[in-house]
Amino acid sequence: MQYSDRILNTPSSFIRNILKVTDSKDVISFAGGLPNPISFPIDALKASVDHAIGENGSKLFQYSSTQGYAPLREYIAAKYQRVHGLDIQPEDVFITTGSQQALELIGKVLINKGDGIIMEEPGYLGAIQAFTLSEPTFYPVTLENDGLNLEELENALQQKNVKFVYTVPNFQNPTGLTYSKEKREQICEILSKYDVALIEDDPYGELRFQGEPLPYIGAGKLENSILLGSFSKTVTPGMRLGFIITKNKELMQHIETAKQASDLHTNIFSQYVIYDYLANNEYTEHVNKIIALYKEQSDTMLAAMDEFFPAHVTYTKPEGGMFIWATMNNGATALEVFEKAMEQKVAFVPGDPFYTSKTGVNTLRLNYTNATPEVIREGIKRLGSIL
Amino acid sequence: MQYSDRILNTPSSFIRNILKVTDSKDVISFAGGLPNPISFPIDALKASVDHAIGENGSKLFQYSSTQGYAPLREYIAAKYQRVHGLDIQPEDVFITTGSQQALELIGKVLINKGDGIIMEEPGYLGAIQAFTLSEPTFYPVTLENDGLNLEELENALQQKNVKFVYTVPNFQNPTGLTYSKEKREQICEILSKYDVALIEDDPYGELRFQGEPLPYIGAGKLENSILLGSFSKTVTPGMRLGFIITKNKELMQHIETAKQASDLHTNIFSQYVIYDYLANNEYTEHVNKIIALYKEQSDTMLAAMDEFFPAHVTYTKPEGGMFIWATMNNGATALEVFEKAMEQKVAFVPGDPFYTSKTGVNTLRLNYTNATPEVIREGIKRLGSIL
Repeated sequence: MQYSDRILNTPSSFIRNILKVTDSKDVISFAGGLPNPISFPIDALKASVDHAIGENGSKLFQYSSTQGYAPLREYIAAKYQRVHGLDIQPEDVFITTGSQQALELIGKVLINKGDGIIMEEPGYLGAIQAFTLSEPTFYPVTLENDGLNLEELENALQQKNVKFVYTVPNFQNPTGLTYSKEKREQICEILSKYDVALIEDDPYGELRFQGEPLPYIGAGKLENSILLGSFSKTVTPGMRLGFIITKNKELMQHIETAKQASDLHTNIFSQYVIYDYLANNEYTEHVNKIIALYKEQSDTMLAAMDEFFPAHVTYTKPEGGMFIWATMNNGATALEVFEKAMEQKVAFVPGDPFYTSKTGVNTLRLNYTNATPEVIREGIKRLGSIL
Repeated sequence: MQYSDRILNTPSSFIRNILKVTDSKDVISFAGGLPNPISFPIDALKASVDHAIGENGSKLFQYSSTQGYAPLREYIAAKYQRVHGLDIQPEDVFITTGSQQALELIGKVLINKGDGIIMEEPGYLGAIQAFTLSEPTFYPVTLENDGLNLEELENALQQKNVKFVYTVPNFQNPTGLTYSKEKREQICEILSKYDVALIEDDPYGELRFQGEPLPYIGAGKLENSILLGSFSKTVTPGMRLGFIITKNKELMQHIETAKQASDLHTNIFSQYVIYDYLANNEYTEHVNKIIALYKEQSDTMLAAMDEFFPAHVTYTKPEGGMFIWATMNNGATALEVFEKAMEQKVAFVPGDPFYTSKTGVNTLRLNYTNATPEVIREGIKRLGSIL
């Protein structure tokens, strides 16, 4: 068989391959990006299954609409009005099979082979993977401590056929960095002069344990604003529910066609259940518990890094989310260090798959949400011994 | 915004657009393709939710593996061994977000722009839609009463870069036709001489209410055999669970990469629930009830057509599945008749979207699974009055 060019060029998930190696019981793994399972509201979701079936019967089990369950879209729209002051209507919300599908659908509807995508560097590898299926040209723009480098952004926008800019403005994956208010305004100002879309992918935004929430970069301001959200980090990833918010009707129409062709519609059973859960539980209280948990884990990891890491290693201090990003300044590469770390039974993700333009990098991603403080401290101690 | 060529060329679902028109309460609709909701084993599935959560806890709610839940893949492999005598192992089975996603993933991994796909004509419009995203050249081959026209098939196989042949061998959508044993063997013989894959899409195969089950065309015989299956027609479509079976390891590897990039993995909550349902219930008995129901509905529709349709209308007599296909031989087109039918408050799907090479056709699809015998009779009577 001859396979397609785009699949031959799509990297298989580096992280998923790593996870196969790091999965043994005696390895302390900071490699995953999994929410802590104690954050799943299992009993409440179980009650919502019974309640939703009781109220709606066979509708949970039948084929359903491509754009998603209307009450769930209404709930999301109302929340973005209330929390973010944005004029979002139910018809501006589209339910996807997780945020990952949102990325892939957007690539499908906007990218012809060779068209430009401006990516944060380092950037979310799931997005790189999803977009690669559309065979784009990536224009990486350095992600600094307060957001994209503006000069590089302006240069990248001069390139031919740039269709969109992809950002994770809050507690970015992989770096944990958050765009400053000023940088957000500057980026919005720059993008307002170009016919490009802005994707703000925000799976972690609610998980802020420090500092003040900031307005989105482009939502409510830019005509081609696309916001992505997810229930994976606050309720459950296993049900694969994410959403796209945009007020661009033509874009929405094309996304609907792409979704029909891709999987008809998102699991409607899970949409009913999650909606019932959201409508009948104290969601904010639930999220506050996750925030308290992750803050303790992040604090523990940072304190251990202060104690055990050599001086040449610098690292980010996240205000929320799930990740810390470390940079080694002693000439070592992350892939070399990964081998040594595995000998010490501790794992992380080498920075390489988060870059579209380079390999052999000196950066690495650490996840803190899925281990106890004791285990985090022990893992960082082991890692410090070989850095 | 400039949209991608492939999305501009992808038809939005004709049927879903029709359903918006036909959705009013006083319309008798034979347009959908929905399983009868009384066939959903709701109580048993609800019990399986409790049971699966009780046994596996947070695993139903966490991220999971791309290829799908191992016990579900084992169940499927064992079933194809037992029922079809095929050497299928769990690693030959891959779980997808419905069969629709299986089609889209196969297009992604095999088709470069312009590559050839041989399609039944008329053929399943969801497949046409899914494959169109990969910008193929379609080579239609006439579907006769016993399967593909062999001469046209041989000619189509001479075309450049043909990657696969797409078939629905049992109770085809839209025609309800089933390939004969002889035609299956002839097609297998022909395809064994070419480096192309054969997709056998079989969502309805278990719903046979007449005649003997037949062996697959290529499964177990052709190296590049791809079987597709689904739980949508026998358990529930709302949970979006389908599967791909192939023994081609390289193809499977590429499908896994495409799936990772497309939505990471299929809803794991639903995979646990369906597996628990299958493991703890009398599935065969359940399917036999659906078969009895659909047989009665099909018999009723055929008897009403005999009574009320004019002589110039011919139609298929399905041995299973969900559809009857009618052909008008009085010069009328299906789209004209659709308008008149809507005045009579009865709906069907005009044949047009099932063809890749023509419009203005004289054929139409009737679904019988979602109405009572009384309603079926009344609807066919109304339709007969304007044919």
